[in-house]
Amino acid sequence: MTTWESLYARRASRMRASEIRELLKLLDQPDVINFAGGIPDQALFPAEAFKAAYQEILAGPDAGRALQYGMSEGSARLRNWIVNHMRRLGVECGPENILVTSGSQQGLDYIGKLFLTEGDTALVQWPTYLGALQAFNAYEPGYDRLDPGANRPAEDYAAIAREKGGRIKFAYLSPDFANPTGLTVDLAERQRLLALAGELSCAVIEDSPYEALRYDGEPLPPMLALDCEASGGINNARTLYCGSFSKSLSPGLRLGWICASADVISRLVLIKQASDLNSPVLNQEAMARVAENVFEAHTAKTNAVYKSRRDAMLAALERHMPAGVSWTRPEGGMFIWMTLPKGMDAATLLETSIETARVAFVPGRAFHPDGTGANTLRLSFSCNDYQKIEEGISRLGRLITETVTSKL
Amino acid sequence: MTTWESLYARRASRMRASEIRELLKLLDQPDVINFAGGIPDQALFPAEAFKAAYQEILAGPDAGRALQYGMSEGSARLRNWIVNHMRRLGVECGPENILVTSGSQQGLDYIGKLFLTEGDTALVQWPTYLGALQAFNAYEPGYDRLDPGANRPAEDYAAIAREKGGRIKFAYLSPDFANPTGLTVDLAERQRLLALAGELSCAVIEDSPYEALRYDGEPLPPMLALDCEASGGINNARTLYCGSFSKSLSPGLRLGWICASADVISRLVLIKQASDLNSPVLNQEAMARVAENVFEAHTAKTNAVYKSRRDAMLAALERHMPAGVSWTRPEGGMFIWMTLPKGMDAATLLETSIETARVAFVPGRAFHPDGTGANTLRLSFSCNDYQKIEEGISRLGRLITETVTSKL
Repeated sequence: MTTWESLYARRASRMRASEIRELLKLLDQPDVINFAGGIPDQALFPAEAFKAAYQEILAGPDAGRALQYGMSEGSARLRNWIVNHMRRLGVECGPENILVTSGSQQGLDYIGKLFLTEGDTALVQWPTYLGALQAFNAYEPGYDRLDPGANRPAEDYAAIAREKGGRIKFAYLSPDFANPTGLTVDLAERQRLLALAGELSCAVIEDSPYEALRYDGEPLPPMLALDCEASGGINNARTLYCGSFSKSLSPGLRLGWICASADVISRLVLIKQASDLNSPVLNQEAMARVAENVFEAHTAKTNAVYKSRRDAMLAALERHMPAGVSWTRPEGGMFIWMTLPKGMDAATLLETSIETARVAFVPGRAFHPDGTGANTLRLSFSCNDYQKIEEGISRLGRLITETVTSKL
Repeated sequence: MTTWESLYARRASRMRASEIRELLKLLDQPDVINFAGGIPDQALFPAEAFKAAYQEILAGPDAGRALQYGMSEGSARLRNWIVNHMRRLGVECGPENILVTSGSQQGLDYIGKLFLTEGDTALVQWPTYLGALQAFNAYEPGYDRLDPGANRPAEDYAAIAREKGGRIKFAYLSPDFANPTGLTVDLAERQRLLALAGELSCAVIEDSPYEALRYDGEPLPPMLALDCEASGGINNARTLYCGSFSKSLSPGLRLGWICASADVISRLVLIKQASDLNSPVLNQEAMARVAENVFEAHTAKTNAVYKSRRDAMLAALERHMPAGVSWTRPEGGMFIWMTLPKGMDAATLLETSIETARVAFVPGRAFHPDGTGANTLRLSFSCNDYQKIEEGISRLGRLITETVTSKL
């Protein structure tokens, strides 16, 4: 049986291993300072609250129900918490507008499945979340560049999509502290993006797993909230909002959600049924309790920690990076995006860095659908304390300085 | 925004609501005797063992790791238990041959995604598991009829697949106590099916969620075990085995697995990464502990209960069904498959049955990819005690007798 390749679907040629995932293996080497992973700090998870929640459920009269199959839409108690959370963000909605997903990653997979036929076009930022490209790639779209600050005229986008044999199905972006750039899309740009999507008659996918992790500045309304306001309500809105508990409470339960028009949710429910029936009821019941009990206090506490780490990394970058290197100053999230001098290659730098400086980060090329971005890289400040951040950025600064100098 | 239909992918036209899922809503009406759901009895779940496992994990030093992201392949401890379980079934394998999935349903979705391009053909039994058709439909295959007792020559299958514009990618079947028929594929038929797949150079998908639920007769080797023996080992085998904890321990944690050639598993891992990153680590750690501690004792206990319910239903059918009605006599699992006299429609019968007899079952047509099977239906004996089974089959027998008589 050596003919597997000939049996695989056409889409399989677009499935590749994630550089980030391969790098995660470095976490096991204690002398490497790891700025690569985009994960929350597990020392901060509310383990006590989860322990109490599982205990309460499994010792209670509804243990059997929590261990049983459940509704594909998600458990009522968790959907109710999400409805209230979305209302706090300015989105008037009901449980019929919520699908619970196994992390927001699964939301992206389902959205690709619902909208994309091969040859269709998805608009994405350059760079964009790598996991979104991986989720969408299975459905064989083309990509065109969304650029909140400087989009092209709608007809130009539409014409290029037609040339590829399909149409623009959605514009995907992560407007708050995006992975990988850390950048936030401002209010005027959100409005212009909605207007562009209106001209293109396409959906907007608002991926916002970092929404609760704001450290400075005023919160901006989600694009879904702006869309609801302009269109007369969520069931007229073109925006699908993907939320997640992974960055705020814990990624280990794999729980997120999609909030959108009831029509779209009812189609996504069918996809959920066919793909894994339902997310674990037990986890949904536990997450509902933990969210009810500690969400606000817990995110306040962890945000203070992440803020101090962001500040430490920004200060260290100022101290240790040579001229010609620039970086973003995010108001939240987990990432700082760095641009090296032109001609420098971040993938080559990583090899040297792991060998000599013992510092890991993610080279930026993989985040660019067109393979550009060789001189960019992503740094995560979420999992290292002040000492490690100072030490790691100092070592990386020295290495970059040496590399720049050797090229002069 | 009233143009959703025009934005959906081509595949969306093949996504329909599950009759079974709609019927599950009847579970809430206490006077309906429900033979419809294909679910295990939640009163039998080892809730104490799960409570102890979650407690141990969340109070221990690895709580943070259990609440963190994990490897897409699955947690080492659970994969090790699965490796040993597969060895007990006669399949020599290692962790590199195992992918943990969110239930075996997710395994089917991933298999469709890996193998099927639109126009390809999947061989399935008539009737077959409805959830498999729903999972595969997203990838737009055609179906042809697999018939373990009387398959057509390989060239005939291949020619029809070519006419549809693709090729046969796999033969899908559930050889042990299948949903919906309860039937088992015998050893000679397993061998012949493997030979046919060899002639077609296609994969075999062995879906075996009920494997541990055998009440009589000698266990048969999985097709994967026979395949390994004939081909010289799992990495040469063409069979992918889908297993599940849902029917043996609990469906609430949503955990199953695929056991196959390391080459195929490595591709499925990429699909898992892109679709939901990983199944919940916490649940995998809990399931590993519960499986280690109680799997054998627990399945022995629950099998005794399910056996008595199967026996009760078979005896009640003998007593209450009129001539012209036939049914299967399964050696395990949860289902009995009934064939009504020709011309009788099980969907119509269900409407009357819910209204007057207050008994629910699943009409058989949905399990047939070609829309035949109108006079068939599925009865599940898993969730009702002796009294309910006797009462429900008695009422249903009366209704069928009346219906048959009124047509004479």
